[in-house]
Amino acid sequence: MSERFFLAAAPQQGQARLQGDEARHLARVLRAEVGDAVTLFDGSGRSWLARVTEIGRDDVGLEVETAFPAPEPALQGGSPGQLTLAVALPKGDRQKWMVEKLTELGVARLIPLTTTRGVAEATAGAKARLERVVIEACKQSGRNTLMEIAPGMSLAQLAAGPAGQSRCVVADPNGTALAVVPPAPPAQLQLPLLGLVGPEGGFTPEELAAADSMGCTRIALGPHILRVETAAIALAAKLL
Amino acid sequence: MSERFFLAAAPQQGQARLQGDEARHLARVLRAEVGDAVTLFDGSGRSWLARVTEIGRDDVGLEVETAFPAPEPALQGGSPGQLTLAVALPKGDRQKWMVEKLTELGVARLIPLTTTRGVAEATAGAKARLERVVIEACKQSGRNTLMEIAPGMSLAQLAAGPAGQSRCVVADPNGTALAVVPPAPPAQLQLPLLGLVGPEGGFTPEELAAADSMGCTRIALGPHILRVETAAIALAAKLL
Repeated sequence: MSERFFLAAAPQQGQARLQGDEARHLARVLRAEVGDAVTLFDGSGRSWLARVTEIGRDDVGLEVETAFPAPEPALQGGSPGQLTLAVALPKGDRQKWMVEKLTELGVARLIPLTTTRGVAEATAGAKARLERVVIEACKQSGRNTLMEIAPGMSLAQLAAGPAGQSRCVVADPNGTALAVVPPAPPAQLQLPLLGLVGPEGGFTPEELAAADSMGCTRIALGPHILRVETAAIALAAKLL
Repeated sequence: MSERFFLAAAPQQGQARLQGDEARHLARVLRAEVGDAVTLFDGSGRSWLARVTEIGRDDVGLEVETAFPAPEPALQGGSPGQLTLAVALPKGDRQKWMVEKLTELGVARLIPLTTTRGVAEATAGAKARLERVVIEACKQSGRNTLMEIAPGMSLAQLAAGPAGQSRCVVADPNGTALAVVPPAPPAQLQLPLLGLVGPEGGFTPEELAAADSMGCTRIALGPHILRVETAAIALAAKLL
């Protein structure tokens, strides 16, 4: 596989341009030359083989040679079988690490969850930083569809929105092991999956009751107290 | 739960002593006073409620009040149902992060795996650093049995040792999804589990063939290229 670059805008008439971080990475870090082959992806599942035609100061021009067949299923958060995680974000490096891992594993959408005991807010700056982590993880892992970082939501907003159309589980130390949860009825298998992960210190009893009212199954992830990012990654690995 | 401290030697006649990092953490960071209650664990599954009786310059004396019942099953790597992971270690922070997460999830033993494309060696210094990470993760997650960091092994040593008495799976992008692997025959369910994870760049075809000869099932962990630590954590989450 040749080096992969994220294209903010799809190619037009066989021509593409990399700008910003992506252009600098290709031109300055990798010291690309005219004629070099790279793989481009636009984050919606499409990807192309392209050759460098022009290296500018802050942008790189490319000519598309081949459109690759999209090998992965559509990863939109609302599609059947796709996984959305709503997580009370941890802080700092743990937040970044979690987003990298969830992207690699194939989570379709991450919703920062506002909770009573939560420690990190989903500010616009945080969202932009995490979107950059998603792009880097997609470049590295061969994933062509970006993981969506959704706007922050409360449990009430989740109940009124995504939860209504999903099979929902909530990570709870007092829940049931996933292996012994009865399989969903066939009609529900067509629904997207939604997993809820609370903050360090856990959901409050009221928040767990709210998750119950949404129809979420309480799932235990083992005998130990997991950090937020560990619970989110373990839940993704178990559900995907 | 009161603060947890790792005890290098089990209490004798109701008396215990913390030394080194643990004593400094309790005495200097948390500024403990005589009479304060803490939880002690010795890494073999046992734990106690104790009270501080004496605070020295580099050690802390404690009196044991209660021995807690051991709530978790024996986590020795060779016990039925227990999971050993043999992993070609990633470098630096990724190695540390992986060990923290595997400890939280309940992996019994980690064997650093020597492979053709591996990047990190299991030196004595590395082992000591990782053992410190294990202790910290046990303190934080409420785990009372240390994850064992075994000496480094090659695939041949693994075949001659632990693999012979285990149900074995190997992470392989071209393998089968775990969900569609036929269940093990009942007699095998009594065996411990062994999971193999290769280096960045993967096992060589010869190494995969060696894993086949050990009786390992090739398991795919999804459609993307996972980093070593992501594959190890995902495998642990799926198997535990």
